[in-house]
Amino acid sequence: MEFIAEQPLDDGVTEREFALTGIPGMLWTPASASPTSPVPLILLGHPGGLRGMSPRLRARAAHAAVQGFASATIELPGAGGRPRLEEVDQARADLRRALDSGEPVSPDIIDRLILPLVAAAVPEWRTTLDALLGLPEIAGPVGYSGGVIAIGVRLAAVEPRLVAAGLFAGSFVPASIREEARQITIPLHVLLQWDDEGNDRQMALDLFDAFGSSEKTLQANMGGHTGVPSYAGEDAARFFARHLRRAR
Amino acid sequence: MEFIAEQPLDDGVTEREFALTGIPGMLWTPASASPTSPVPLILLGHPGGLRGMSPRLRARAAHAAVQGFASATIELPGAGGRPRLEEVDQARADLRRALDSGEPVSPDIIDRLILPLVAAAVPEWRTTLDALLGLPEIAGPVGYSGGVIAIGVRLAAVEPRLVAAGLFAGSFVPASIREEARQITIPLHVLLQWDDEGNDRQMALDLFDAFGSSEKTLQANMGGHTGVPSYAGEDAARFFARHLRRAR
Repeated sequence: MEFIAEQPLDDGVTEREFALTGIPGMLWTPASASPTSPVPLILLGHPGGLRGMSPRLRARAAHAAVQGFASATIELPGAGGRPRLEEVDQARADLRRALDSGEPVSPDIIDRLILPLVAAAVPEWRTTLDALLGLPEIAGPVGYSGGVIAIGVRLAAVEPRLVAAGLFAGSFVPASIREEARQITIPLHVLLQWDDEGNDRQMALDLFDAFGSSEKTLQANMGGHTGVPSYAGEDAARFFARHLRRAR
Repeated sequence: MEFIAEQPLDDGVTEREFALTGIPGMLWTPASASPTSPVPLILLGHPGGLRGMSPRLRARAAHAAVQGFASATIELPGAGGRPRLEEVDQARADLRRALDSGEPVSPDIIDRLILPLVAAAVPEWRTTLDALLGLPEIAGPVGYSGGVIAIGVRLAAVEPRLVAAGLFAGSFVPASIREEARQITIPLHVLLQWDDEGNDRQMALDLFDAFGSSEKTLQANMGGHTGVPSYAGEDAARFFARHLRRAR
C-alpha cells in the first residue's frame, strides 16, 4: 500500500490517496485514530468513478469520522482510469438498449453485467482490507457500506472480518447472488429508493427476503435513485454505531 | 372529558385516566407542558384492550415525553369493557377459522373485520382530539402513532389537524382503505415486521405503495409480530421529533 497524497479536512479528519497493486484508493481517518487507540473501519462501496464520486464519498467519510470510524474505498474494476472490462461494457450497452426499448431486462444481461464485476472486485476489497488492517491506527471491527449491492453481498458471504453491512439496493442482482445472500448472518441495514427509476423494486425485496441474518432492516424512502433523504443517512450511521463501537 | 384518576410517573410525566362520552382513555403529559408552554400531541393507536396494553402504551408515552410531547389514547370500539361489535366478533371468528384451516383470508372477511371498526373508531378519535386540544397545556401539532393501521389511514385521510403518522403495518387492510391511502399527503413512517405471522406482507407493501405522501418511509425488521427492535422505536421517535417540533 503506497500513499500518494495526504490532505487535512475539517474536524481533524485526514484524507489520504493510496495505490495498492495499481488500484487507486482513498482512506479517511478521524483525529482520534492512533497506534495506541486504533479505530473501526467502514469500507465505502460506490458505483465506480472515484474522482467524480469523491465529494459524496468524502461526506460519507466525514459522517463516519464523527463516530470515530475510519473509512476507505477503492476504484471499481473497469472504472475511472482502470483497464476496461470488455464483457461488462458489452452488457451495459445491452442493458441500455433493453431499457430504451422498454423490453424487460433479461437475467442473462444482469449476470453478464454484475458477475464479472463482483468476481474482480471482491478479491481486491479483501487485499485492501489486509493492507488497511495492517496500519497501526486501524483495528476494526469492519463494516461495508453502500453499493454495488452484489459486491457487498459476496463480500459479506466470504469475508469473516466483516461484522455489519449497510447496503444500497440500487443496482441489479443476479439470481446466483441472491442465493449467496442466504449464507449471510451478520446484521444488515438495506436502503431502498422505492421509486428508483433505474432499479427493480421486486428484485430488491426478494434479495432482502433472502438474507439469512436474524437482524436485518429494510428502509425504503421516496426521492428516486439519487434522492436518499438525509435522515436515512443518519439512520444508517446509527446502525454502524451500534455494531462497530467496541468495548475498549 | 372527565378525568377519573391521576398519577405521577418517572421524569415528571403525569398519567391521567379519562372518560369521554363513555369511552375510557389515557393521557400522558410531560413536565414541560403548561398553559404558557403547551406541547405537541401524539395519538397512540393500539389493537384494543387498554388495560392489558397499558404497560406498552406507558413506555411509548414516556419516549414521547422525553421529546416534550403529550400522548393520549382511547379504548377501541368493542374492546375492553366496551359493548361488543357483533359483526366484528363474527368476522374475527371467521378469520380464525380461515387461518386455522390454512385457507386464504377472503377480502370479505377483512372488510367485515376492519371496516366497522374504522367507521366506529375514527369519529371517536376526532371527538377526543377536540377535547384534548381544548386543554390549555396541549396545542399540537398532532401525530398518530401505531395500529390499527386502517384506523390511522382513515384518520389521516379525513383529519386535517394530523400532520404526521407513524403506522404499524400489523393488521389486515381492506381494499377500500388502500384507495383512501392515495389521498394522504402528510409525512409517513411505516413499520413492517417482515415475518409477521398474523399479517400479509404483500398487503402491507401495496398499502405503502398507495400512499400519496412525497415523504414516506417504510422500515421493515425481523422478529415477528411483537418483536419490533428497540432501534425501530427510536427511529420512529426521531420521525415525530422532525415533524412535531414547532418553531416557538
